[in-house]
Amino acid sequence: MANKHKVVVVGAGFAGIQLILDLKGAGAAITLIDQRNHHLFQPLLYQVATTLLATSDIAWPIRSLFHDRKDVLTLLSTVDGVDTAERTVRLRTGETIPYDTLVLATGARHAYFGHDEWERDAPGLKTLEDATTIRRRLLLAFERAELETDPEKRRALMTFSIIGAGPTGVELAGIIATLAQETLPGEFRRIDTREARVLLVEAGPRVLAAFAPKLSDYAARALTKLGVEVRTGEPVTECTEDGIRIGREFIACRTVVWAAGVQASRAAEWVGAPADRAGRVMVNPDLTVPGHPEIFALGDTAHVEIEGKTVPGIAPAAKQEGAYAAHVIRDRLNGKTSHEPFRYRHSGNLATVGPNAAVIDWGRIQLKGRIAWWLWGIAHIYFLIGARSRLTVAISWLWAYLRGQHSARLITQKETLKPE
Amino acid sequence: MANKHKVVVVGAGFAGIQLILDLKGAGAAITLIDQRNHHLFQPLLYQVATTLLATSDIAWPIRSLFHDRKDVLTLLSTVDGVDTAERTVRLRTGETIPYDTLVLATGARHAYFGHDEWERDAPGLKTLEDATTIRRRLLLAFERAELETDPEKRRALMTFSIIGAGPTGVELAGIIATLAQETLPGEFRRIDTREARVLLVEAGPRVLAAFAPKLSDYAARALTKLGVEVRTGEPVTECTEDGIRIGREFIACRTVVWAAGVQASRAAEWVGAPADRAGRVMVNPDLTVPGHPEIFALGDTAHVEIEGKTVPGIAPAAKQEGAYAAHVIRDRLNGKTSHEPFRYRHSGNLATVGPNAAVIDWGRIQLKGRIAWWLWGIAHIYFLIGARSRLTVAISWLWAYLRGQHSARLITQKETLKPE
Repeated sequence: MANKHKVVVVGAGFAGIQLILDLKGAGAAITLIDQRNHHLFQPLLYQVATTLLATSDIAWPIRSLFHDRKDVLTLLSTVDGVDTAERTVRLRTGETIPYDTLVLATGARHAYFGHDEWERDAPGLKTLEDATTIRRRLLLAFERAELETDPEKRRALMTFSIIGAGPTGVELAGIIATLAQETLPGEFRRIDTREARVLLVEAGPRVLAAFAPKLSDYAARALTKLGVEVRTGEPVTECTEDGIRIGREFIACRTVVWAAGVQASRAAEWVGAPADRAGRVMVNPDLTVPGHPEIFALGDTAHVEIEGKTVPGIAPAAKQEGAYAAHVIRDRLNGKTSHEPFRYRHSGNLATVGPNAAVIDWGRIQLKGRIAWWLWGIAHIYFLIGARSRLTVAISWLWAYLRGQHSARLITQKETLKPE
Repeated sequence: MANKHKVVVVGAGFAGIQLILDLKGAGAAITLIDQRNHHLFQPLLYQVATTLLATSDIAWPIRSLFHDRKDVLTLLSTVDGVDTAERTVRLRTGETIPYDTLVLATGARHAYFGHDEWERDAPGLKTLEDATTIRRRLLLAFERAELETDPEKRRALMTFSIIGAGPTGVELAGIIATLAQETLPGEFRRIDTREARVLLVEAGPRVLAAFAPKLSDYAARALTKLGVEVRTGEPVTECTEDGIRIGREFIACRTVVWAAGVQASRAAEWVGAPADRAGRVMVNPDLTVPGHPEIFALGDTAHVEIEGKTVPGIAPAAKQEGAYAAHVIRDRLNGKTSHEPFRYRHSGNLATVGPNAAVIDWGRIQLKGRIAWWLWGIAHIYFLIGARSRLTVAISWLWAYLRGQHSARLITQKETLKPE
């Protein structure tokens, strides 16, 4: 036991989980450290935030994933720092965990481009708590509007702004508009939820900038048809509890969601590695940290550049990086020291825009509309973990599709008690 | 519209919901006020607290229940008081809602018998937040034990005390023992979850005091077989973050759940009504408040005594009271002024004790064991609202039964970030 190669993995996201799966039988002693007890399927997090899915549909206890892997020790803890000379990871509890190989896959949070004070009024969407916070604000806005007599305040309560028109922003705007237009009407007596205003604000020239321009056009048209006001080409210059400012115009709104940028975790600082502006480690072609062949940085923690192109921060990229690092570790355990550099196979960009509308960009093949939407749904059910999640997500989607009913419209957490 | 009879219902529990369902087509203008946006199926709340069910499985948005009832206005708000002379209900927002008939069905919270300071360390189980709080503490206790090196502290982390051995206490103890004995083993590397100690502490002489003695005996034996230490006949005299005291013995434990007593909400104070020690309104035989034939008190808000026996605070009783009050209100709208008093039909006592073990007491017919367990499950699925909840609860139970896997083992809320 004592002389087994010790692999410490920090972060149980797509990269970390894939790496551990691929190290099965490699004979290493693996320690997995995460601040949370669950692995989260982030691509569907926006559906938890918008009442379509339950938290437990898209999150699995990390321990249960490695139930039969006696070579994996899972610790729910926070990393305080790394001693690269001693080769140990220090936990907040004071315990130090020694490693031979360290894998940093700690993900990213949202970034406010120097305006961290905006976070309170414009929460981002990265964790289950973020999702239930946004869900609560969204539902409470309609509840408060029903109680509000001042037409101006009511209007602000029924205005929803999404900042950033990448896939998350587009998907949030589409589903919030659908909620207001199709799910909620008839349930309120004093307000008409169809009068809700949903804004999608993007500083760049078009929505879904990573997709082909004609798919961006389609998405913008589909959103407009759902009632979303798409505002491109102007950045948000102010975020307060009363509303947002776009250029010179102030828009009164009480619910804002931030989907505009990400900032990597502090992993680069832990190991004194060079980082890009978003805090991502500038890794070597084999995904190791410069000067530290024993330390890998993966997923949103890493800035990976291949032939001048940056690998995107999406789940398939993180999984490929995890698989590659596992492969290198196995090779090293078998005495092989040189490796092909990491190569990224882009599996395409996908986003839903609304009911029966999605876009898929596979480069030469581009799909939009109903077929893309069904493919998107099937692909995501396939990527979920375990038959139970697949079944319950499929049921929730089927119910929404056939009955127009969202199954997770609950306001929880303490603020419930103080609706005003 | 203006001269319609105005019914204001405070509380969307079993009594309030049943009353409104039964007032369909009565021609009244109904306003339903609740602090929460959801109706909660409390009898299964312990399964949310113990990771078996998701929150959305047992809670439904109140508005969606009355989607097609244009005569029902739902308001998410807190009642601040009642003006019985003016016949208005005052909301926290300042709005006053006039009534012709007022229905108080505001439920109960747990009671600490003069030791409110125990609540912090021994939370009760009445709301979804209570359930996710207990779930978090339960799961974090095992996580912290895995990180703990001091054997004594580890032992305290792995000791769980349930105070009160009514149905909720018995069900919690049984499922926590099952979790430790069957679901979690194999997932931890440093601790053996089967060494967890689960105590069920009851001041009275036996568990399930409302059931026939031989069913109590069976339940106590079944719990003991699961590994639960059943301690009857001694009250808890101290509750701190370090543990509990039973008689003279101090038991170090870090997770305590309170299932020992209830206290009605402040509704009796609002209307200046006579109340029993638990704060329940001493109602007339027609469930109205003495001196106020226009005000009903129902469910856990009411002390109903029939031929010297108190109607128990269970869901079927609340539903019957709601149905009865609706009947009286309809009669009055039709000009009928005298009524038969409320009569209670006891539909039996049910409780699960563990896998394949439950007790059912129908008076002359008493069932225990596997058959009772299946009947209990079928009955509860039947009582859920809507096909979707029935399906997802059935799937969750099936998964637990066949695979031993609990589907909602998530630690959420902010404390996650600070496991120590």
